[in-house]
Amino acid sequence: MSASPSAFDDESYRAGVIELLGALSYGEISACERIVDDARMAPDLATRVEVAMMAAAEFEHFIQLRDRLVALGVDPFKAMEPFTASFENFHRRTAPADYLEGLVKMYVGDGLAADFYREIAAYLDPETRALIVEVMSGTSHTDFVVDQVRKAIEADPRIGGRLALWGRRLMGEALSQAQALVAERDALTSVIVGGGDTPGFDLTAIGRMFTRVTEAHTERMSRLGLEA
Amino acid sequence: MSASPSAFDDESYRAGVIELLGALSYGEISACERIVDDARMAPDLATRVEVAMMAAAEFEHFIQLRDRLVALGVDPFKAMEPFTASFENFHRRTAPADYLEGLVKMYVGDGLAADFYREIAAYLDPETRALIVEVMSGTSHTDFVVDQVRKAIEADPRIGGRLALWGRRLMGEALSQAQALVAERDALTSVIVGGGDTPGFDLTAIGRMFTRVTEAHTERMSRLGLEA
Repeated sequence: MSASPSAFDDESYRAGVIELLGALSYGEISACERIVDDARMAPDLATRVEVAMMAAAEFEHFIQLRDRLVALGVDPFKAMEPFTASFENFHRRTAPADYLEGLVKMYVGDGLAADFYREIAAYLDPETRALIVEVMSGTSHTDFVVDQVRKAIEADPRIGGRLALWGRRLMGEALSQAQALVAERDALTSVIVGGGDTPGFDLTAIGRMFTRVTEAHTERMSRLGLEA
Repeated sequence: MSASPSAFDDESYRAGVIELLGALSYGEISACERIVDDARMAPDLATRVEVAMMAAAEFEHFIQLRDRLVALGVDPFKAMEPFTASFENFHRRTAPADYLEGLVKMYVGDGLAADFYREIAAYLDPETRALIVEVMSGTSHTDFVVDQVRKAIEADPRIGGRLALWGRRLMGEALSQAQALVAERDALTSVIVGGGDTPGFDLTAIGRMFTRVTEAHTERMSRLGLEA
């Protein structure tokens, strides 16, 4: 906080950042738990370990976020509480039917979350921004996922059609949950769209952001060999 | 390997160490997976996170062991293969009925494994010994487990009786699996009891080792407020 006392002097900014970090934290821990669940569907121990490494990376990020909330003087679990239903809903509605759907969900979900939070981070104080950029930096496991998905499609091209549909569904569910979440949380919204002295996105900027996020999603899908 | 070329020049010593690291690796990854399972029974998110930190520590150890097997020029998953049934048996026979049984299993199981492997490590080349001592060093979560178990017994003393029985059952199952495992694996056995130029335990030493391991178990149980 010492690096940017002025930003946090604004109570509504502070509340917004706490909400953002709460959402982000719960997003990470719930992703971690789902990845661990999904790892069970992996075909062998070596693959399960690769998947577990992704879960461990998410968990590491979670711990950093939790520690930041503690440093801000709040109970991190109380800060996460308002967001649990939203993320649990998302995960319930997007339970993968098999290992490949799990991999695509990880890759697409991680990517979307990273894009979205990094866009928001651009408007935040330097310390919060650095934390978000760090915890959202891609893990090194992208190549593993791309390789697994591409191989599976090569072996059976019909899988590509099914996974493409799956990717679209993930994107739709993610957007609808994100929208519902932002609509409910005033402090979070004011950090995103700006308010008082806080800079933020205007509606045109939000439109452009969604375009960028959608384009990046399309690129990720095509890296997997899938149509978005 | 460069630090101790002579030990690894002995093919049967090398085979024994690989078996030991294979057993240890699978022990760690299967413990990690069970802890993650058991975390689901935790009463709230804060506790679930504490438990997940223990799983993350086991996973970190697993990765170090796996990397060591790779450095020794073997397929780590092939090295683990002979031990999977034994550990899976143990876990199937000791599935915790609730969160507290899960905590006691973690604590008692981790402690037993650490004692046992450290005893063996004393007879190994310095590099292998250092690795084993490092991955078996206690995590910092002991206080958390002790605190949770003691509080639960305080709130309902009958829990103490049930958990004491549980601890005895864990000890019994662990010993019987360890015995079966060693009996089946010649290379592992010769590392433990010695053979050729390899030092190791003689039968009296094995007896003393079991006494020490049992005493340490009793101490751990009493730290939890349980009779061994």
